[in-house]
Amino acid sequence: MKVLYIYAHQEPKSFNAALKDTALAALKEKGHEVELSDLYAMNFNPVLTEKDFTDRKKPDVFKPFLEAIQASKTGAFAPDILAEMEKVKWADFLIFQFPIYFTSMPAILKGWIDRVLAPGFGFNPLTNSAYETGLLKGKTTMITTTTGASEEWYSEGGEHGDLNRHLESVTHCVFEYMGMKVLPSHIIYEVSSLTKERGAEELEKYRKRISEL
Amino acid sequence: MKVLYIYAHQEPKSFNAALKDTALAALKEKGHEVELSDLYAMNFNPVLTEKDFTDRKKPDVFKPFLEAIQASKTGAFAPDILAEMEKVKWADFLIFQFPIYFTSMPAILKGWIDRVLAPGFGFNPLTNSAYETGLLKGKTTMITTTTGASEEWYSEGGEHGDLNRHLESVTHCVFEYMGMKVLPSHIIYEVSSLTKERGAEELEKYRKRISEL
Repeated sequence: MKVLYIYAHQEPKSFNAALKDTALAALKEKGHEVELSDLYAMNFNPVLTEKDFTDRKKPDVFKPFLEAIQASKTGAFAPDILAEMEKVKWADFLIFQFPIYFTSMPAILKGWIDRVLAPGFGFNPLTNSAYETGLLKGKTTMITTTTGASEEWYSEGGEHGDLNRHLESVTHCVFEYMGMKVLPSHIIYEVSSLTKERGAEELEKYRKRISEL
Repeated sequence: MKVLYIYAHQEPKSFNAALKDTALAALKEKGHEVELSDLYAMNFNPVLTEKDFTDRKKPDVFKPFLEAIQASKTGAFAPDILAEMEKVKWADFLIFQFPIYFTSMPAILKGWIDRVLAPGFGFNPLTNSAYETGLLKGKTTMITTTTGASEEWYSEGGEHGDLNRHLESVTHCVFEYMGMKVLPSHIIYEVSSLTKERGAEELEKYRKRISEL
């Protein structure tokens, strides 16, 4: 299987980095091909601007949707977007790993979605290519994430409410929208207070989960 | 009233820009003081890195939560964060205006939240300062947003589900979390197919809403 691992954490000595390394090792051990997009290490630019489009259809006024639809026909996206699109096209399976920032993803990853999974590439409302007919149909995806707050806070009836429900804005409205099959998110709660032992247990649980994909 | 208007759209000739200009004029007409954070025009950096903290508590390993809590005591945040924090402290009322990108905010605005509404500034789990005791208590806020998809798609039972529910990840888990009072979001659906007449009607409706704040 061809796996694209999209990873968003700044610190190579973090628990998130250990999770990522565990997953990459497990995937390779199983004989999968792996590509990594390590967004902070790549200094990925998350801000969608007119520079994303190298041959503007409407140079006088910037309409991102229109330009993306046009660029998806001609390939006139900025090189950093095209490189990520190639990885997405290549992959059968996409794993998104990030720490929760305010019940959703850090800006650097939101911007990867905004810029790479563009109209005309991941979906196309003009041709009714969405959900059952989304343009990334055939691919599977999952989220791996860590929280600061407790599982109780992130449960239905808890202070923040069910984290899985907040993530639907991505799992349903981005991933399923583009036709991908979405596996249950792998969530590790309250990582700030993980003991060494529980950390090791969580890494082993994640290794097992990834090995069985 | 002191109003901070946080605005995220790239194009001065867009409908979003017209909404923003309408609001700023209406606020000034009512005698309110207004500060604008025009994120694209400011070239705001949305990526939270170790450079956000000018006097690291733990220089060997980057722990964003820990550094933010520390910096909120000493003021050792990067200058662009401090400048935005000053505006937030000054304001009684915050308006966030952005086009919906995949049922949530563009990365540039998510990064403003990630970096400016930092632990220790907007909330503090260590001192139980959240929700009823959030650190921005006393302020009021609202979202103004535009969508590409229809109101039907964004309704309960529609393809994407209720947009207000997706926005709870911000209205509840960020704004209410920090103690702010949240007014109903001002949502304008399907702006891509607005006629000139309906556009003018929507601008007038928004002018009225803002005038009555």
